[in-house]
Formats: sequence, structure tokens, C-alpha cells
Amino acid sequence: MKGFFKVQRPEELYKRMERFNPLSCEKVGIEESLHRVLSEDIISSIDLPPFPRSTVDGFALRAKDTYGATEKNPAIFRLAGEILMGQVSDLEVKDEEAVRVATGGMVPNGADAVEMVEYTEWVDSHTLHVFKTVSPLENVIQVGEDVKAGTVVLRRGCRVRPQHIGLMAGIGRTDIPVYLQPRVGIISSGDEIVPIEATPRPGEVRDMNRYTIVSMVKEAGGIPLFLGIAKDRFSDVKEKIESGLRESDMVVITGGSSVGALDLTQDVLRSFPGTEIMAHGVSVRPGKPTLLAAVGEKPFLGLPGHPVSAMVIFHLFGKTILGILSGQSEQEMQCGKKLKARASRNIPSEPGREDYVRVKLEERDGALWAHPIFGKSGAISNLANADGLLRIAINDEGLEEGEEAEVILI
Amino acid sequence: MKGFFKVQRPEELYKRMERFNPLSCEKVGIEESLHRVLSEDIISSIDLPPFPRSTVDGFALRAKDTYGATEKNPAIFRLAGEILMGQVSDLEVKDEEAVRVATGGMVPNGADAVEMVEYTEWVDSHTLHVFKTVSPLENVIQVGEDVKAGTVVLRRGCRVRPQHIGLMAGIGRTDIPVYLQPRVGIISSGDEIVPIEATPRPGEVRDMNRYTIVSMVKEAGGIPLFLGIAKDRFSDVKEKIESGLRESDMVVITGGSSVGALDLTQDVLRSFPGTEIMAHGVSVRPGKPTLLAAVGEKPFLGLPGHPVSAMVIFHLFGKTILGILSGQSEQEMQCGKKLKARASRNIPSEPGREDYVRVKLEERDGALWAHPIFGKSGAISNLANADGLLRIAINDEGLEEGEEAEVILI
Repeated sequence: MKGFFKVQRPEELYKRMERFNPLSCEKVGIEESLHRVLSEDIISSIDLPPFPRSTVDGFALRAKDTYGATEKNPAIFRLAGEILMGQVSDLEVKDEEAVRVATGGMVPNGADAVEMVEYTEWVDSHTLHVFKTVSPLENVIQVGEDVKAGTVVLRRGCRVRPQHIGLMAGIGRTDIPVYLQPRVGIISSGDEIVPIEATPRPGEVRDMNRYTIVSMVKEAGGIPLFLGIAKDRFSDVKEKIESGLRESDMVVITGGSSVGALDLTQDVLRSFPGTEIMAHGVSVRPGKPTLLAAVGEKPFLGLPGHPVSAMVIFHLFGKTILGILSGQSEQEMQCGKKLKARASRNIPSEPGREDYVRVKLEERDGALWAHPIFGKSGAISNLANADGLLRIAINDEGLEEGEEAEVILI
Repeated sequence: MKGFFKVQRPEELYKRMERFNPLSCEKVGIEESLHRVLSEDIISSIDLPPFPRSTVDGFALRAKDTYGATEKNPAIFRLAGEILMGQVSDLEVKDEEAVRVATGGMVPNGADAVEMVEYTEWVDSHTLHVFKTVSPLENVIQVGEDVKAGTVVLRRGCRVRPQHIGLMAGIGRTDIPVYLQPRVGIISSGDEIVPIEATPRPGEVRDMNRYTIVSMVKEAGGIPLFLGIAKDRFSDVKEKIESGLRESDMVVITGGSSVGALDLTQDVLRSFPGTEIMAHGVSVRPGKPTLLAAVGEKPFLGLPGHPVSAMVIFHLFGKTILGILSGQSEQEMQCGKKLKARASRNIPSEPGREDYVRVKLEERDGALWAHPIFGKSGAISNLANADGLLRIAINDEGLEEGEEAEVILI
């Protein structure tokens, strides 16, 4: 019988994917850079702050003049002026003088600390009592203390988050180099698949995979490009894959979950020059009939036709490939939407494959519990109720109630 | 002295926010619905699957004919045909007959189970040995087993994820009712604030908050609308807030971290009819000088000027308000980007306020550890290195090494 899979372990697939490379780069304004991936280190050309700033509302003074000050025995200062926000000042603070400053305001020359307003009291309009000792540099951010000119503030491969954009704004970077977003050609296949607008006749099913894969590509930072539904015919599959390879950086086909359909996809791929079949079958449940290939430099991923299996496999392998194409660092790809939870009951599993169980998460008694949603692998309603996929390792016979395991949030 | 805060606890602010309501609704195609919020329950009008489907590649047959079958004592079946994918069949399976079906294919009348191909062997082209007993309904999804016609498949208030879109595609929903995305007017304020393109003179700082708040609004599903930098003058602040109230569903102003500036914002708000100041100061660090108000039905949030404080406060309160305006269910707002981690060292905290410590997360020995990044609250570089905000409860004096606490991923 043709087409028994040479099933591989997930780690083998991850290893093989390392042959793929990030796409090229472009410049974008920092306003458009959210969730993009830096293609170069970002180096600050300035000191931040560029002047010494107060971190509190209070009075700039010389710390030594506050030594020993208490509620009962306050230190006495003479008000030498006020520095308003945004103002430069050539005030020079001398012994036993205080200058009023606001949070974020400049600390004038001569002062080495700021006393918080809460620990002061006016004696008259020019005289101040201070009730608490401050140390030198207390409540002051010095020049360059936040960022020193010439230092790398963000690394290549970093996926840009709001705080990164804030930092780049702070050092005056208005545009930054990022990797191109991978364009992903998406094909649904199968004689039984009809567009969702159609009313399926008996035996036919609506094309759910188009919508789940398109959405997951968007979430992973790619640009989806739906190429249509291919019938299980060589010519039709070939034409769609060809246009995918032409117009995008990666091609994903769903369907072909049956042995015959997977063989057809493989035959089509082999008809392109420079095709390497990297994996044909993976020891993951649900999702065994998975096809990973490279056509020249472009990744090709064949997913099972079952919507649930297709989603699980895309979460594991599709997102990893997108991470590589979009230049994400190892660290960036590891972090993200994974957490640990305890099994709320015994969950059986067959050793010899990694099992991804749909789970609902619940916080109870200070711990996070994963409730398995059992059901046949075609049941999309179960998946729609799930918060995550709980991983049972390849050699485990399952989890016992209370045991902890990794959950991929979906 | 004017402007001492009537500091409130975070829970009081959350409670007060319940007066805000979701915006109105619109219809969108399911392809555009990712991360939108359902404004009505989604009810299926059809059974899914609409015909009995096989979950494996194999042979449809009557389960009772396999009873007692073993490797050594196989049951014998006559091949009565094959059903191709997408095909309807009026084949009627009789006793000791088998019909070949593929995964997802229709199970013909008369059959009540599917034997997996792995447990069969051809004797000749019309005769099959079966080595394993199957139970009735084994490897078959019955009509409506996944989704029954008339049932609610997704609830109002659900934030649409890829698996939800797949489910809606499966039941043939092409467009769905969702709440409008909140438009958020964003104002930066402060005499010291200059656009990031400018080279700040001494005492001036670049407008980081514009960029962090815009990005966080996008991540939370809102539509940001930057309205400019307001000087610390009544007329300028008033003009910007006015245009925010006119053009958007919520207004956020940053700056005014000093007591005087917060008072100015408050005075401007009071000049609008129907203003209610709901909170003025919150017991959170960093971020105490926070202003929550309602102008008519529209929420107004005044954030501290420090970029780090502004981000912390927006994560806590800005996102909650956006969740309410966009119609997210309680459950949806709870879930999301929170997890538990252990403190990698002792972290001190002053009781009387909730403390949000910037942390870097690391997985080690099967547990998730939070390393605090200490630093003055104005240090944006520390925030840019952080993965999350670790919460120390209002009455705690800190966390001990190894103690577990909640972390908001940022």
C-alpha cells in the first residue's frame, strides 16, 4: 500500500526548519512598527535623560544639609527659586538653599538630591523646614542614567512592543529597519470542500480552514493571501501551488488528510525543480499527516484537512516557520503564548506521539487548572470552547490529576 | 496646599467604571472579525456535521460483525464499494459488508462504525480481514454531534479568535454583529514635551507617551487618534479635550503628573457640563496621580507623565475601560495576558498601595521565575527590558524569594 508515513518527531521538524532564513528588510516609521521585528540593533545616539531630572515633586538641595533632620528637629532652607517644567535654569544651588522642582523637571547645578514635598513645611514664603534626611542622588535621575549614548537599547530579532516604541521615541528614532512581513499563500484542498457561502450538499463540507489559517497567519505577523480551493487533481493542485510560490514567501495547503491526497500534494511538489521533502508525517496528535517541504528557499507546509488538526499543526510548525521568516530571535520565539497549568483530571495518552489536548483554563485556589475538552478530533465546537492546547510529551502515557504541563494559548 | 489626592484603591476604580456601557454595533464579514467582540449570541441554524462522517481512513461496517475479531481470528467482510470525498452515496451497508471511506467522508446507511485501515488486510480484491473489534459509533461523528441546530455556539461579549472564525465558517455564517471599536482620543501634555522629531533643548523631553499609548490602544482593540501636545494652559488643554470628546469615544491625557498639572486638567474637565470626577489619585505605584472621570457617558483617563507610570496605569485601567466600551464579557476581560510567576529574590514594597514591579521572566527547573528590574520609575529602558508587571498586593510588605504572584504580560 502506498504512502505509509515516515513519521518524524516534532524536534526533528524544528531542527530541519533551521535551513530557512529571514526575508529582506524595509524601513518603517515607529508608529507603524508595532509587532514588527527589528532587522538591526537599535543604538542610542543620545544620553537619556539629557539633563538631571527630578523623579518627585519637591525641592532640589544639597543632601548633606538634610543630614540629621527629623520631625522634631527640622533642617532649615532658604528658597532660592523655582524651575518650571521644560525650563532651563542657570540657578546655582548653594549651601542651605532649596529650589522648587516638579516631577520630571531639571535639577539645577549645585543640587545633588531632591527632598519630596511631603517631608517639608513652609515657615514663611522664603523659608522651609525639612523633616527627613535624603542621600546624595536620591530622587534624581542623572544624565545618561536611563540610556547612555552609544549603547544598544534593542536587539535585532526583537518583536516590537509598545514599551519598545516608547523607548525609541525617547531617543528620537523616528523610523527603524524591520524585516518584511512574510506573505503566506493559503490553499484549501479536497473535492468535498465548498466555499462557506454555498449550501453544502450531502458529503460536502464548508471551507473552515481558510478562515482559521488566515487568522492565525495575521496573529503571527504574516500577510495571508488566499488562493482558492483546489480539487484533488494534479493540475488543479499544481496551478494553485505554483501561484502561491510566485506570489508569496511561504505556501500552506490544508486538506489532503487522507493518504492519497497527501501523496498527490507530494507528487505535485516533486514536479517543481529544487524541491526537498523534509518531513512526511509527524508524531503529533491530532495532526499526523503533515508535510513539510522546501521549494528552493521557500517553505511549504501541508496541513491535515480536519480543522482541529490543521490548527494544532499550524500553531506548532506554521508559526515557527513564520517566526524564522520574519527574523524573530530564538528568545522571542520561545516567549509568548505558553504557560503551565495542572490537569484537572487524569488525561490518558498513547506514548509514541506528542498529544495536544484541547483545554479550558480556570484559576482556582491560586493555581491554574486545565480542564480537558474531550471529543472526536473533527469537533470544531470543542476547539472553539478551548483556551489552549495542553502538551503531553511523546513518551508519556498521560497526565495524572494535578500534574503540571505546558499549555499553548490559542 | 492645593491638590492633595483623595487616593482610591484600584478595586474602587474598577467598581466605578461599571457605569460605562458598550458602544453600538455593526456587521462585519467573518474575515474582518479577528479580535472584534460579538454583540449578539451566535446560534447555529444547521447541524454539524450535516451527515455522519468518518474520523479515520478505513471501512464503514456494522460494529456487531467485528465482535471477537483478533489478529489470529479475523472477521471477514465483503467489499461493497467505496465512497469518495465529497460524494453522496445511496449505498446501503448490509451484514458482513464493508465500504471504503476516507477521513471526513460520509458513512453510508446501514453502517454504524468505521474500522481503521491499520487493522485490516486484503484477502483478495473483494474480501477483507478485520483484526479488531469496533464499538457502535466508533470513529464516526454523527449528525449534529459537533453542533446541533438551534444551539448557541458563541456568546455575546466573546472576543473573536481564529477558532471562533473557523466555527462560524463551518456553520455558514458569513457576517456577524460586533461592537464598534472604541476610538480613543490621545493627548500629551506638559510645557516640557516636544515632538520626537525635535531636538529637545535642556529641560525638554520627547513625547514618548504618545507612542506607547497609541500602541497599547491598538493592542487592546481600540482605534487611536492622536490629538497633539497641549501646553499647561487652560485654553490649550480645553481645546484638545474638547476635540477629543467630539471625535472619539474616550479621551486619554498623559502628563500632568505634578499636582498642579493634574489640577489644571481637573479644572478643564469641570468646565464641561455633565462631568463627574470619579477618582483623583489611585493607590498604585508607579502611577498614583491618576484621574478618572466621566464627561456625560464618555470616559476620561488622566495618566501620569512618566512613561513607565503611564504604561502601568493604562494596562490596569485604560484597558479595562476599553474592554467595557468594546463589549467584552467579564470572562473575556479576566482572561488574557496574566500568569503566575515566582519572585527570584526578595522584593520589598510599601503597604498601602499596589506595587507593579517590572520583571523579566525566565523558565527554570520547570517553574516560571520573575526577576525584578529595579530602577527609578522614569527609566524607560528598564521597562523596555521587561516582560511583565508583577503585582504586589496593597497590604503586602513585599514578596519573599520563591513566593508566587500575578504577572501582567506587557
